[in-house]
Amino acid sequence: MSYFEDLMPGDHREIGSYVFTAENIAAFARQFDPQPFHLDEYAGRASIAGGLSASGWHVCAAWMKVMVADFTRAATECAARGETPATPGPSPGFRDLKWLKPVFAGDIVAYAWDVRSTRASESRPQWGLVNFFNTGVNQRGEQVLSFEATVFMPRRRA
Amino acid sequence: MSYFEDLMPGDHREIGSYVFTAENIAAFARQFDPQPFHLDEYAGRASIAGGLSASGWHVCAAWMKVMVADFTRAATECAARGETPATPGPSPGFRDLKWLKPVFAGDIVAYAWDVRSTRASESRPQWGLVNFFNTGVNQRGEQVLSFEATVFMPRRRA
Repeated sequence: MSYFEDLMPGDHREIGSYVFTAENIAAFARQFDPQPFHLDEYAGRASIAGGLSASGWHVCAAWMKVMVADFTRAATECAARGETPATPGPSPGFRDLKWLKPVFAGDIVAYAWDVRSTRASESRPQWGLVNFFNTGVNQRGEQVLSFEATVFMPRRRA
Repeated sequence: MSYFEDLMPGDHREIGSYVFTAENIAAFARQFDPQPFHLDEYAGRASIAGGLSASGWHVCAAWMKVMVADFTRAATECAARGETPATPGPSPGFRDLKWLKPVFAGDIVAYAWDVRSTRASESRPQWGLVNFFNTGVNQRGEQVLSFEATVFMPRRRA
């Protein structure tokens, strides 16, 4: 993961993909969202989505999984260059989360982010705030998820 | 779950609680958010949260679990009265999700909703749109989660 100073408005990064399967869709649903259309192909077909579809929260949790894998990879590369990897700070939350299309068993969702804006934190000089626009796009090129998140990123000269 | 006509601005409902444990915090984190401070007590203590804390997405997924349990319960009661239970439609997403405080192992989060506004859907006469303000409050009375969601609810005379 980058330091605050490394991120500029307009930056774009493809962070990785997640494969949704009937098994992982139902496993997530059993734990957290046991609605019939997330558990069972037949109920999914009868639902408004028209097929077994993933819980919206599964689509979000999968984003987090891909995000953590990406920043772990970036930190490893950074350490390999002899630099100290940056550790992102807590996220205060996010805005305007949209589940734009259902995610079906067999779908592969590719996640990416774009930096919308950056600003120094007035109260915490060791951190900057970066506003990211996050998206998930399926193998048909359809956006299935978008949300905006503002994250504390450490400053290089903290 | 209620029909559109049963929900009025100002309505409030306590939907249930979820107990966060070191085990379920780490189990969620291993699947979707394997950052050290969500996996390990020691790393949690060294983090900004000051203790082993749940992934924000776990706090959301637990809300969904409690929500589904509550509307399943309401549907059962409704069926017992000889009425046809309402099935909520898809959620297009939500706004302004805030993780206000860390959720630690041992915390019990009570979730609730308030209806902010209701309106008929112009494009889909069989549905109404209900705007809910959702919260999670821990056993110390601190709000740990809030977000606003607009949900399609079926109309009684669809």
